[in-house]
Amino acid sequence: MIEDKIRDVVKQFKPYVPGKSKEEIVRKYGINPEEIIKLGSNENPWGPSPKIKEEILKEVPKLHQYPEPVSPELLEELSKFLDVPKENIIVGGDGADEIIDTIMRTFIDEGDEVIIPIPTFTQYAISTKIYGANIRWAKFDKERDFQLDVDSVLSNINERTKVIFLCTPNNPTGNIIDKKDVEKIINSTDALVVIDHAYIEYSKKEYDLTKWALKYDNVLVLRTFSKVFGLAGQRIGYGITNEKIINYMMRVKPVFSLTRLSQICAITALRDREFFERCVRDGIKSREMLYEGLKKFKDIRVYPSEANYLLVELKTMISKEFCEELLKRGVIVRDCSSFDGLGDNYVRISIGTFEENERFLKILEEIIK
Amino acid sequence: MIEDKIRDVVKQFKPYVPGKSKEEIVRKYGINPEEIIKLGSNENPWGPSPKIKEEILKEVPKLHQYPEPVSPELLEELSKFLDVPKENIIVGGDGADEIIDTIMRTFIDEGDEVIIPIPTFTQYAISTKIYGANIRWAKFDKERDFQLDVDSVLSNINERTKVIFLCTPNNPTGNIIDKKDVEKIINSTDALVVIDHAYIEYSKKEYDLTKWALKYDNVLVLRTFSKVFGLAGQRIGYGITNEKIINYMMRVKPVFSLTRLSQICAITALRDREFFERCVRDGIKSREMLYEGLKKFKDIRVYPSEANYLLVELKTMISKEFCEELLKRGVIVRDCSSFDGLGDNYVRISIGTFEENERFLKILEEIIK
Repeated sequence: MIEDKIRDVVKQFKPYVPGKSKEEIVRKYGINPEEIIKLGSNENPWGPSPKIKEEILKEVPKLHQYPEPVSPELLEELSKFLDVPKENIIVGGDGADEIIDTIMRTFIDEGDEVIIPIPTFTQYAISTKIYGANIRWAKFDKERDFQLDVDSVLSNINERTKVIFLCTPNNPTGNIIDKKDVEKIINSTDALVVIDHAYIEYSKKEYDLTKWALKYDNVLVLRTFSKVFGLAGQRIGYGITNEKIINYMMRVKPVFSLTRLSQICAITALRDREFFERCVRDGIKSREMLYEGLKKFKDIRVYPSEANYLLVELKTMISKEFCEELLKRGVIVRDCSSFDGLGDNYVRISIGTFEENERFLKILEEIIK
Repeated sequence: MIEDKIRDVVKQFKPYVPGKSKEEIVRKYGINPEEIIKLGSNENPWGPSPKIKEEILKEVPKLHQYPEPVSPELLEELSKFLDVPKENIIVGGDGADEIIDTIMRTFIDEGDEVIIPIPTFTQYAISTKIYGANIRWAKFDKERDFQLDVDSVLSNINERTKVIFLCTPNNPTGNIIDKKDVEKIINSTDALVVIDHAYIEYSKKEYDLTKWALKYDNVLVLRTFSKVFGLAGQRIGYGITNEKIINYMMRVKPVFSLTRLSQICAITALRDREFFERCVRDGIKSREMLYEGLKKFKDIRVYPSEANYLLVELKTMISKEFCEELLKRGVIVRDCSSFDGLGDNYVRISIGTFEENERFLKILEEIIK
C-alpha cells in the first residue's frame, strides 16, 4: 500500500486551502472582475512599475534557456537599493517562502526546535513542520495590543533551538517589535534570528533593521518584491545575512528557481525608484485613510499599523460571516481565523487605491454600524 | 557560534557550481552573444512558441496579485494534452525539480532509503541528501551500452525503500529503460517508482509510459516544459500520479511557486500544438544530423539517443580539456565528469538548430580527428 510509505507528519497536515483570488470570485459569484475590490493579500494596489512591459518583451527570445541562478544585474541593483554588499544577499524564486524553506534545510534536523510567536505569518509553522522540527509557541500579547511578549520567546530558548522567527511589522497585527526586544533576543541565543521585514517599506525609516544582518553573527533579514514592489505574481524574495550563512544556504537552495521573467521584473522595479517612492507614499496615505474610515464604525476595533494592512476586531460578528457578506458584494478581505492564536473575530484588511477604499467603506455601511 | 547550528549534512555538501550560461561566457571570453552555440543544457534551440509575447503582455497588469496555485486553464490544457484527468496532475514552479522536492517532503523521514541507478540526472541525489535519506546506488551498465542493470535495483529494495528514480530516456546516456524492466521494478515494491519522462517527446510514441501513472498504485511520471516546449527559463514541471498521492503532495507543496507569467507561458505553449509538433520533428532530425556528423570522428564514440542530446565518449582527451577548447571557440557542451558513475572522458551534446549543428561540427574538426 502506497499510503504506508507516506510520512506521518504529512498525514497530519490539513489539505491546504489558499486565500481567494480574483479569478475564483469571478467564477463563484459571477461578479465583473473590474468591480472586485481585492483587499485580502497585502498587495500593492497600484501594481508593478509600468516600465516592466517593455523590458520583459526583450527577454522572451531567451525563455528556452535556463536562467542564471541570479543575474549579476539583479544582485547589483539590490546591493545599491539596500546599501549592503552583494555577498550578503540571497534571492529566492518562490518569494520569501523559498528563503524560509532554505533556512530550514540549512539548519533543521528532525527533532530540532523553532520558536514562533503567534499570531503571525503562517508559513513559518508550515515550513517548520515539513522539516520535522518541533515548534515552541511564543506570543504577541492580545492583552497589550499584540506587543511581543519577549519572555515567552526567551523562556523557550534551549540547546536545540535552531531558528526564531520575528515578523516586524507583524502579519497580521501590523505593529512592530521594539528594537530593544529584538536585540535582547539576538543576544540571548546562538540560534538564527529571522527578522521578517516583508512590510518594512511602509514603516518609519529609522526603524529598518536590515543592517543588523551584518552587525550580528546570527541574524537574517527577510524581504520581498511581493509587497510595495507590486510583484506578488512573480514570486521574488530575498534574504540578507552574513557571508558564512549565505554560503551554506547556497549549497541547498533550489538553484534555478528564479525565472527569467521574474529576474527582469525585479531589476526593472528596482531601477524605477520614482514609482517605488510614490507607492510607498501613497500606500501610507491609503492606510491612514482606511484607518480613519474604519475608526468611525462602532462595531469594530481597528489596530494601528506600520504595514499595508490593518487588523480589525469584530465586536458583533464572526469573521467567516463578515467575509462572506463582503464577498457577495465583491470585496475580498482576509478572514484571520486560520491564524493560530487569534480566534474567530478578526479580519485583516489590505490597503486599496483611494477610490477602492472609498467604495469599500461605503459597502461596509451595509454590513456593520 | 552560528556554524554550530548548521546541519552536518549541509557542511558535507560541495558548494554548488551551476552549468555555464550564455551570459557567463559572454562576460568571461568576450564573445559576441550572437555567435555562441549553446549545446550544454538540453534546451529546445528554436525557443518557445512565438505566440507567447502577445499573451504575457495581457498578464502584466495583474502581476501585483498572487497567482492562483495553478490556474484551471492550465490544468485543463494539460489534461487534454496528456489525455489524463486533471485530478491526476500536479504542477510545480521550479520545473521538475520542485516535483522531486515535493516527493521527498511527502515520503522521506530521516534514515529512509532512495534507490538511484547512475549515471543519471544529478538532482535526485541532491534532493535525497537534503531530506536526510540514504542513497542506495544502482547502475546503468557501462559495459552494456548503459542498459539498466535491473538486478542492481531489485537487490537494493527493502522495507525502508521509499522512492526509486528511473530516468527514461536517461540523462545523460540518452537510452530508454526496457518497458519490461520498469514493470518488473514497479511490481517488486510498494515504494514510489518515479519515471522521469523529461525527454519523452523525443522518443518513439509507443514507448510513452505516462498512462502507467494511472494503471499502478505506486508510479509517478515526471514531465516538464523545459525541454521541447522551450520554456526552461520559466521553470514549469509537472507530475502525473494517482489521486491519493496527489492529495498528500498538495499538502506540502510550495503553494504559490508557479509565477503568473509562467502559467501564461505554459498555457500558450500547450495551445500552439503546431509549433510543438514542429519542434519535436525538427528536434529528432537535429539529433540524427548530429549523430551522423559525430560518428565520422574516430577520436570519439557517440551513443544512440532517444532524447535531445547525445552522450559522447572521448578516446583521446579528458572532458574538462575538451569542453574548455570548445568554450574558447564559443561552444557550450556539458562536461559529464560531475555525473556520479561516469568518469572524466564523457561529454553530453544537446541538439542545436541545423545551422548551429553545422557550425559546431566544423569547429570540432579543429579539436579532434
